[in-house]
Amino acid sequence: MKTYISTYRVIYGDTDRMGVAYHANYLRWFEIGRAEMFRSLGMTYKSIEEQGYFLPVAEVNCKFISSAQYDDIILIEASIDGAVRGGIKFNYRITRESDGTELVRGFTRHAFMDRNGKVVRPPGFIVELLREHQMIP
Amino acid sequence: MKTYISTYRVIYGDTDRMGVAYHANYLRWFEIGRAEMFRSLGMTYKSIEEQGYFLPVAEVNCKFISSAQYDDIILIEASIDGAVRGGIKFNYRITRESDGTELVRGFTRHAFMDRNGKVVRPPGFIVELLREHQMIP
Amino acid sequence: MKTYISTYRVIYGDTDRMGVAYHANYLRWFEIGRAEMFRSLGMTYKSIEEQGYFLPVAEVNCKFISSAQYDDIILIEASIDGAVRGGIKFNYRITRESDGTELVRGFTRHAFMDRNGKVVRPPGFIVELLREHQMIP
Amino acid sequence: MKTYISTYRVIYGDTDRMGVAYHANYLRWFEIGRAEMFRSLGMTYKSIEEQGYFLPVAEVNCKFISSAQYDDIILIEASIDGAVRGGIKFNYRITRESDGTELVRGFTRHAFMDRNGKVVRPPGFIVELLREHQMIP
Repeated sequence: MKTYISTYRVIYGDTDRMGVAYHANYLRWFEIGRAEMFRSLGMTYKSIEEQGYFLPVAEVNCKFISSAQYDDIILIEASIDGAVRGGIKFNYRITRESDGTELVRGFTRHAFMDRNGKVVRPPGFIVELLREHQMIP
Repeated sequence: MKTYISTYRVIYGDTDRMGVAYHANYLRWFEIGRAEMFRSLGMTYKSIEEQGYFLPVAEVNCKFISSAQYDDIILIEASIDGAVRGGIKFNYRITRESDGTELVRGFTRHAFMDRNGKVVRPPGFIVELLREHQMIP
Repeated sequence: MKTYISTYRVIYGDTDRMGVAYHANYLRWFEIGRAEMFRSLGMTYKSIEEQGYFLPVAEVNCKFISSAQYDDIILIEASIDGAVRGGIKFNYRITRESDGTELVRGFTRHAFMDRNGKVVRPPGFIVELLREHQMIP
Repeated sequence: MKTYISTYRVIYGDTDRMGVAYHANYLRWFEIGRAEMFRSLGMTYKSIEEQGYFLPVAEVNCKFISSAQYDDIILIEASIDGAVRGGIKFNYRITRESDGTELVRGFTRHAFMDRNGKVVRPPGFIVELLREHQMIP
């Protein structure tokens, strides 16, 4: 399955007194990864919300292998794991651009929710888009 | 005029690689200060929003005198500066609890906004509450 | 095994435009949970670092069940999962104080690292402290 | 005096329940502005620290004119205000890329500090660099 890559530069405000990026920030960078993946496919996550669908995070997992440093450019790889049935699962891998060091691996699971906060089936226009771009089988 | 004090303990995620609290966090702590001030007066900021009024920040100023360290308990003093006319201005002073060191001084100015995003005059129920508690002249 | 509970009040800055707490913040609240657990045992995480040991996060997992709202007081339960061998694993459960709603369940795994960034065995003084307080078998 | 422009895309995690970017985030974006300005001049802020100088924020001011929305690309303009004497002052202006709306105006003042936390005079290599690029008179 295809992978999309976005970049981010680590700022001072992302670091902590251990001298490296504070671990919670990687969840923000996962968000960048999946948002930019949707944008690459021609549909922003914003437009999905405008059509009445929300993808709240149901689960997140992140394994920390090495540490992003201040001023590093990081590469955020995002892909979709398997089929889109009840919800959708994204896989992520973040590496340091300068030397290719693998920093984290993780995933997020999301439900599809409508404007009333009710969990719904994945809307057809999203499933079709992902299939068309061979992001899902 | 009266001052209200709230407390917060600095976490690892608040620090940066200089080893102290990242400066942007003080704006979050100003928010704690004014929210707890309203709560002390018997009216939560949440309930103000439920009544259809919003107080977006129009200006913030903060002077950094000394640095909050990891695990410090900080004291957030909040008071209201002058009368409530077009908007409302809060003054803040944050000190370290353990030794009384002054960390920052600052202020925020806020407009009163209704649900449609229109700037409005300060609602009577807020002005009365503040007067009753001698927070404003 | 014993559980320690700390509290936190959700601020405006923790919320996102879905109207609830942004998911990455729960990792900050897990940090509060384990820091306050250590403090309850009579040893701050800060003092552990001063003795030359660091507990970087090696893995985090979080299942989002319901959403923390603005101004909610949340209860952060932290406990230690199993024995402390290569590293240490904390379990967390966060609930809303007002109605007991379960918000998230999760865990973090940590390595023990020395000042040079080398992974080391759990220092005796920590293992003893945890055993003494029946946090580990 | 010259102005440098950097860009940032507002993520979900930057917004709050008012539906717009939480105000404290603009201080992070000011940081991006001054860091990218230094990089454009051929000297990263990271390398300044490696040479033993730190520029902690001594004061910040920010006027909020309009609101950055989720998924907006914002343009961060940074310039240096006046001469570099005791410290250095940066001016910022942030606009929305899509329609040019002015979002905020602000400034930060910084001291020069050495590795021991002592305030020092601006190091010659920085003053020369800024003069060479006509950032200061």
